[in-house]
Amino acid sequence: MSNFEMIQAAAKRLDGKAVKTPLLSSPFIDDIAGRPVFVKAECLQHTGSFKFRGAWSAISALSTADRNRGIIAFSSGNHAQGVALAAQKHGVPSVIIMPSDAPIVKIENTKALGAEVVLYDRATEDRDSVAARINKDRGLTLVKPFDNAYVIAGQGTCGLEIAQQAADVGVTDADVLVCCGGGGLTSGIALALEQTAPDFTVRPCEPVGFDDVTRSLVSGKIESNKQLTGSLCDAIITPSPGEMTFPILKRLCGGGITLTDDECLHAMALAFDRLKIVIEPGGAVGLAAALFHGDALNSETTIAVTTGGNVDAAVFKMALDKFGSKN
Amino acid sequence: MSNFEMIQAAAKRLDGKAVKTPLLSSPFIDDIAGRPVFVKAECLQHTGSFKFRGAWSAISALSTADRNRGIIAFSSGNHAQGVALAAQKHGVPSVIIMPSDAPIVKIENTKALGAEVVLYDRATEDRDSVAARINKDRGLTLVKPFDNAYVIAGQGTCGLEIAQQAADVGVTDADVLVCCGGGGLTSGIALALEQTAPDFTVRPCEPVGFDDVTRSLVSGKIESNKQLTGSLCDAIITPSPGEMTFPILKRLCGGGITLTDDECLHAMALAFDRLKIVIEPGGAVGLAAALFHGDALNSETTIAVTTGGNVDAAVFKMALDKFGSKN
Repeated sequence: MSNFEMIQAAAKRLDGKAVKTPLLSSPFIDDIAGRPVFVKAECLQHTGSFKFRGAWSAISALSTADRNRGIIAFSSGNHAQGVALAAQKHGVPSVIIMPSDAPIVKIENTKALGAEVVLYDRATEDRDSVAARINKDRGLTLVKPFDNAYVIAGQGTCGLEIAQQAADVGVTDADVLVCCGGGGLTSGIALALEQTAPDFTVRPCEPVGFDDVTRSLVSGKIESNKQLTGSLCDAIITPSPGEMTFPILKRLCGGGITLTDDECLHAMALAFDRLKIVIEPGGAVGLAAALFHGDALNSETTIAVTTGGNVDAAVFKMALDKFGSKN
Repeated sequence: MSNFEMIQAAAKRLDGKAVKTPLLSSPFIDDIAGRPVFVKAECLQHTGSFKFRGAWSAISALSTADRNRGIIAFSSGNHAQGVALAAQKHGVPSVIIMPSDAPIVKIENTKALGAEVVLYDRATEDRDSVAARINKDRGLTLVKPFDNAYVIAGQGTCGLEIAQQAADVGVTDADVLVCCGGGGLTSGIALALEQTAPDFTVRPCEPVGFDDVTRSLVSGKIESNKQLTGSLCDAIITPSPGEMTFPILKRLCGGGITLTDDECLHAMALAFDRLKIVIEPGGAVGLAAALFHGDALNSETTIAVTTGGNVDAAVFKMALDKFGSKN
């Protein structure tokens, strides 16, 4: 199967299982951006992020024997919850390896979704060794967060929906702004749009200082981030683009755009006020680019994918305090 | 045309113009409610409430001559913004009469959506006289918030979507919990479901102490609220059910359910945490009933309509502070 056929097959497996997230808009957002902006509200996906799509795609493609043995994944965040719920709904056992210093609420959520959570100490243990020890006799299938063809195909189903929804509102020319970590969602959307909306340009969006994809696209080879902590956009910070995702990004994407934490908080407050959706800082970079970096965009219309909404109340209140409208 | 044919006709006029709002769910919400809960996220509608549907329906049904003269409406809140945007998109002039003590941000929003805003002093002026003075030579068409057949038909399109989306997820038996003020949305949904999902029961939900509809359904005649202020759920407080809406509610709805402000704030915090949507207190009564009043429900499944999201940051933060999960 071609990449595109894999996305179409994933869409069939996801039909009725994933949320067909809406394409939202507001004249107030358009006014700030200076052009029409549509928001693909993927924060409304099950478990609050697009990760459920890729997880469902990967698990639903397993053989019966592999399903019976179960799956394993590493994650401190959105991938953990997406995998746990997709596994639970398939009746497939799941083991999620999480750092012991992950927020307790995320650990509890992952357990509540039926996963066996194994904690490891980031300072003294190597997570691959932890996984190898657990998996010695169990034959669990590893579900990687982005460098997995089924995961990329699952994320690509978001791109199929964007193409259809954009056509429904008459959009024929757009920059599609995608919050980008390892590049699973960005590459999946780019592959879907290559066939369904070839005039659209996918633009990866990243936090300032964690712009591995942007720099990789400039240099033409995989670049890494110098640090992995220190941004509010923790959900989309990865060491570097993936071995599978980067060639796709390189072939299909326009240049990256980088955003400050404050721009993301501002976008979160505007999304609260004008779109009535909850987005996390890492899920706001695309919308922030649409709002505040119009000079970097080339198309008449902008489509921003708000990729996740798993934000602590404290951070959300910070966004409202700094950038919310006053009454 | 029958009521149902009017809803079908409104759906055609609204196609591609209103948001087909998603039906959301979360295993965490189901767990608290003790049964499956689906949330019709109507807070994601244009201008942040269902009011846009009725406004679009009414304005799109006007003759060319009436459109050219324009429309007039009274509202301090969601109806104002829904009417203003629907009029603007039709190129129809709109006059919105608002109390001079309405929040400045709501007045500014309504103006920004192209309406001519006329303020009146609630203490010293009668709004009908104000309207009559303005409308003396202009022949504007009054768009009432609920006692208007086209408005009810427009709100009913939300019910058509609920029936289709419930069928898509295999729901055949449900209590449909609707936040109820004058009864436009509740009666519209009830008329739509009467034909498309006759086994569903629509249940009006109201704030404790402002339960005019609940009491009217018990007594069989229109009852009024003793007071009109003093609830966080201001968006859904009206003196009494409408002359047009009440007979429909009486014929088709199950008993009303009443909710406290704290139950609504709790539902808002859970919607933030688990569904990633922003709802206002008055838009949360239906979800609060699903979460905390399961003993009043008779069906296997609950569908709660979250009708609006136009909430001040201060009230939203209060909900998170009182009922948000701690990290």
